[in-house]
Amino acid sequence: NLLLQRGGLDSAKTLLQEEITKKLDLKQICSTSHVFNIADLGCSIGSNTFFAVQNIIEAVVSKYKSQGLPSLEFHVFFNDHIENDFHTLFKSLTPYRNYFAAGVPGNFYSRLFPKATMHFVHSSYALHWLSMVPNEVQDKNSPSWNKGRIFYESKEVKNVYAAQFDIDIGSFLDARAMEIVCGGFMAIILPSIRAGADPFKCRATAVLHLLGSSLLDIANMGLLDEAEVDSFNRPMYFTSPAELEAVIRRNGCFEVERLEQWAHPTSQVSAEQFALTVRSTKEGIIRGHFGSEIIDDLFNLFTKKVIDSGLFPDSGYLLPSELFVLLKRIDDNIER
Amino acid sequence: NLLLQRGGLDSAKTLLQEEITKKLDLKQICSTSHVFNIADLGCSIGSNTFFAVQNIIEAVVSKYKSQGLPSLEFHVFFNDHIENDFHTLFKSLTPYRNYFAAGVPGNFYSRLFPKATMHFVHSSYALHWLSMVPNEVQDKNSPSWNKGRIFYESKEVKNVYAAQFDIDIGSFLDARAMEIVCGGFMAIILPSIRAGADPFKCRATAVLHLLGSSLLDIANMGLLDEAEVDSFNRPMYFTSPAELEAVIRRNGCFEVERLEQWAHPTSQVSAEQFALTVRSTKEGIIRGHFGSEIIDDLFNLFTKKVIDSGLFPDSGYLLPSELFVLLKRIDDNIER
Repeated sequence: NLLLQRGGLDSAKTLLQEEITKKLDLKQICSTSHVFNIADLGCSIGSNTFFAVQNIIEAVVSKYKSQGLPSLEFHVFFNDHIENDFHTLFKSLTPYRNYFAAGVPGNFYSRLFPKATMHFVHSSYALHWLSMVPNEVQDKNSPSWNKGRIFYESKEVKNVYAAQFDIDIGSFLDARAMEIVCGGFMAIILPSIRAGADPFKCRATAVLHLLGSSLLDIANMGLLDEAEVDSFNRPMYFTSPAELEAVIRRNGCFEVERLEQWAHPTSQVSAEQFALTVRSTKEGIIRGHFGSEIIDDLFNLFTKKVIDSGLFPDSGYLLPSELFVLLKRIDDNIER
Repeated sequence: NLLLQRGGLDSAKTLLQEEITKKLDLKQICSTSHVFNIADLGCSIGSNTFFAVQNIIEAVVSKYKSQGLPSLEFHVFFNDHIENDFHTLFKSLTPYRNYFAAGVPGNFYSRLFPKATMHFVHSSYALHWLSMVPNEVQDKNSPSWNKGRIFYESKEVKNVYAAQFDIDIGSFLDARAMEIVCGGFMAIILPSIRAGADPFKCRATAVLHLLGSSLLDIANMGLLDEAEVDSFNRPMYFTSPAELEAVIRRNGCFEVERLEQWAHPTSQVSAEQFALTVRSTKEGIIRGHFGSEIIDDLFNLFTKKVIDSGLFPDSGYLLPSELFVLLKRIDDNIER
């Protein structure tokens, strides 16, 4: 999973370097600050956050050198939710880094930093996580009640997921608009659906459906209560470029400097290997919700379903596409 | 232990409020920044760090209000070494706080923040910890070899501890001089020895001697190798006001705005209670160095020695005094 993400970051690296070199107004930044503040939101603990940060710093350093500007010091803020393993993150910081580091615990859908202090905000593979499961999905009396499923499989349910994404990204942009200096940049990388693609014919979605149907089988075998499956929903959404752009326009504080979408490199992984990967990433949350007893039965069933699905090693199903958006904080003349 | 520290912070609270009200030049700070940056160095995980930070913020808020200055946002950086339990610290942050928070892992004897970014640095009960045990103390060929002891009991050994403290505080002040804005404040609170007092007639020192002599008894009983006792030394030093002031003068970037020393309130704790407290704070480090087998024998011996010593509940031995120093970063006209 982290390796797939790294592939996306590699592609983003070139784009970021180009955009920083061409468009970041360092003269303006240097005239007001001797420190360049960077935030990585949803950093987790991995090497990917260090890779992304290093890339931004290198591009900024080579730009201020080539422009003969005074050198800047870098202050990097690594953010994730409070339960993130900051200890591992901190231990992984190399002592030979050329920046000062801080960890920032908290929800990035609300404010994390003082006003107008950030020069570059970066967030990769984090914003497809919703702040919560939409209420309607768990409401028996709603037409969007997601009975017996753990992800959207119908238009009704997808619509309330989309509405939650819209609210969350709106809050995210509102908070960042306060925190990013005028002229500052924000790069967002997240898995997405191509314009016009069928959101239900996406491999990630299909795999979650197989997991949901395996849970339902376990319930039908009497090993767990079906209501427990009803109350288990993954708070995740794969947006389209158009949906994201609509929220950005509504916010009004950012200009889209670049938007690119590219296909995830097709992986030639076998069905069994893939099922194992899913188990390793989802076992914890499932154990937390359903208890430990069902785990082996569940993943045996699931593996069989993944094999039978014909989704692997290759199929007509799409992988989520990488969506890269680079935004510039513009002067909106609104006092925030 | 934390309660004793809280007692010291209570006394420091009044001093800090007075000094901020009288001397902090908020007009100057507000003219260059809309954010007031605070760092607590050696924060640990306790409520004491939140208490101290809240106190500083309240004093600054009431000052900018009374002066009709624009309101400031507060950014607070909680620093401790990498192995500190930041997870507990982060979970203890109230969501109703009026500041943005970050955790900063690292050694405060070197740089932690970009140049000229901090407006108020606070450090309590942290700077009596040395960065390391002085080398000579563990060197058989040195006159300061601390054979069979775990803390300084002779002038020779105390001198090398003092030299290490001098180096450490020097590094600390050098780093902070870079990080604190001109006009910014730094408050230091630490346990100390009164001017002219006998450093060996201090209760904290005496207790460490009893612990060392208990370890030696265990070695003499053949339960551990005496060389293990020789290589175990506590990296801690109780300074005097004069020693601290000498390092501050040498650094040259800070003016002493206030220096106060007061006696620790005498505690009427019994010898047995005190021995238990020592066990709870020192057991982990002793277990790490000597293994688990000796622990019960050691602390039984130690408790007997504490009772026999007559140090408790009250004696002529001094408790370490609280030393409070408030420094202002002055313009030294030196490019750093």
